[in-house]
Amino acid sequence: MLSSTAAVLVIGNEILSGRTQDVNINTIAKKLAAAGIKLSEARVVPDIEDRIITAVNELRASYTYVFTTGGIGPTHDDITAACIAKAFNIRLVEHPEAVARLTAYYTPANLNPARLGMALIPEGAGLIDNPVSAAPGFTLGNVYIMAGVPNIMAAMLDNVVATLQHGPAILAVTVNSTVPESILAADLATIAERYPDLDIGSYPSFRMGQIGLALVARGTDRAMLEQAADALAAMIRRHGGEPTVSFAD
Amino acid sequence: MLSSTAAVLVIGNEILSGRTQDVNINTIAKKLAAAGIKLSEARVVPDIEDRIITAVNELRASYTYVFTTGGIGPTHDDITAACIAKAFNIRLVEHPEAVARLTAYYTPANLNPARLGMALIPEGAGLIDNPVSAAPGFTLGNVYIMAGVPNIMAAMLDNVVATLQHGPAILAVTVNSTVPESILAADLATIAERYPDLDIGSYPSFRMGQIGLALVARGTDRAMLEQAADALAAMIRRHGGEPTVSFAD
Repeated sequence: MLSSTAAVLVIGNEILSGRTQDVNINTIAKKLAAAGIKLSEARVVPDIEDRIITAVNELRASYTYVFTTGGIGPTHDDITAACIAKAFNIRLVEHPEAVARLTAYYTPANLNPARLGMALIPEGAGLIDNPVSAAPGFTLGNVYIMAGVPNIMAAMLDNVVATLQHGPAILAVTVNSTVPESILAADLATIAERYPDLDIGSYPSFRMGQIGLALVARGTDRAMLEQAADALAAMIRRHGGEPTVSFAD
Repeated sequence: MLSSTAAVLVIGNEILSGRTQDVNINTIAKKLAAAGIKLSEARVVPDIEDRIITAVNELRASYTYVFTTGGIGPTHDDITAACIAKAFNIRLVEHPEAVARLTAYYTPANLNPARLGMALIPEGAGLIDNPVSAAPGFTLGNVYIMAGVPNIMAAMLDNVVATLQHGPAILAVTVNSTVPESILAADLATIAERYPDLDIGSYPSFRMGQIGLALVARGTDRAMLEQAADALAAMIRRHGGEPTVSFAD
C-alpha cells in the first residue's frame, strides 16, 4: 500500500527536561500524511554524541526517510552536524554555499567563528533552505537534518517534502459522539476487521465529567473511508448516540 | 550524581498520524525532574504488537524506569497489556482487584466483556490507581503502564512517582535576553566547561521578527546554579544585553 515510511528524531535536552513541549513531531506527522508518507516512529534523545549517532543509524536503516530536529545552531550544545558526520563516517567540511548564505545574512564583518561554524556540514550533503535565519539544514542519504525552532523547522520541512517521493495522501474521517467506547467495543472490532486497509482508532476524552468519543478511520481510499464512516455512524445510532461525521481528524 | 534514569514509551497511532499532539512526555518529564529522576529517552510507536514488544524490551533493559502511555482501554486497538505480557513472557490473567474496581464503577449489570477485558493484566503485576475512570494501570518489573488520556495519565503518574526511589530534585535557572546566541557562543562554551555538573543549553526563539534567547542551566545543586546564573548574566551584560534571571524554566 504505502511505499514510504518515516521516523522523526528529536534531538534536545530541553524536551526531555520538560522545559519545552515538542510540537515538531506533530507538524511533521501532519505534513507527511498529506504527502502520503507514514510516520512510523518518533524518538527523543539528549544532546549526547553516542546517543544521537546510535539513534540515527538505527532509524536510517529501518525507514525510508529520517527527519531530525534540533542541535544545528552555533552554540556548544549544537552537536547534531558533527554527530551525523560520525554516524555516516564522513568528515565535516565548510560548505561553500552555506558560507555564502551566512555571509549574505550576517555581513562578512559579523560572521564570527560560531556563526561560520554553522556552515560545517558533512562532505557531500545537500543543503535545506532556511528562509527564516539563513543557517541551512542539510540532507545526507535518507536523513534530513532540520532546525529545532518550530517555525524554522516547518519552513525547512516544506522545502524537503516537495523533493520526496509522494504517495496518495493519507485521509481521515472522524465520527464523534458521547457513547462510551466500552459499549461499542465488540461492534467496533467487527467493523475494524471488515476494513483491514484502514486504521480505525477509538479515542475517548473525559472533560469536566463529560465523556467524548472520537472514532477515527484513516487510509488513502476516500470511497472506502466513506463506507466505514457510514458503518461507524450506524453503529453509534444503534447504541442510542448521535454521530457527527467529519472528513478530518 | 543522578542514580535513576527513565524512558517514556508513547503507544498510539494517533500521535504518529498527527491527529493528537502528545502532551504526556512533557508532563512525565516535569514530574520526574521534580522527583530527581532524569528522563533519558522518549519513543513513540504505533499500535503494532512487535513494535511495542521490541521497544519495551529495549527500554526496560536500558533505564531504571520505563513509563508507557496509551492502549489500555477496552477497544480493539488497545493492545498494550497483551504486548507487555508477551514482552515479559508472562500470561494475561483476570486481576481480582481490577475486577472489583470495575464492578464497583460500572455496576455488575453493566460490566460487559469489553469492560471486563480491562482487568486482564499480566500475572503478578501490581495495579496503578485510576481515580478518573476506574480501569487501572499496572506495573511489572521496572515498567509502569499508564493510560493515554492526559488527565488520567497524570493522576496515575502521581501515584507511581510517590513509590519510586527519589533523588534530589533537578532544578533550573533561566537567563533571558535578546542577545543573539551566535555572539555569545564562545563565552557560553567557556562557562559550560566551567560547570561540568550542570546541563547548560541555549534556546533561541524567533517571533514576529524579534530574537529571544533563553540560556538554561540545570542541575541539583542550588548554590552552583546561582553561581552559573551570575556568570551567564554577567556575560549577557558584557555583550550589551539586559539579562533577566528566574529560577525556573
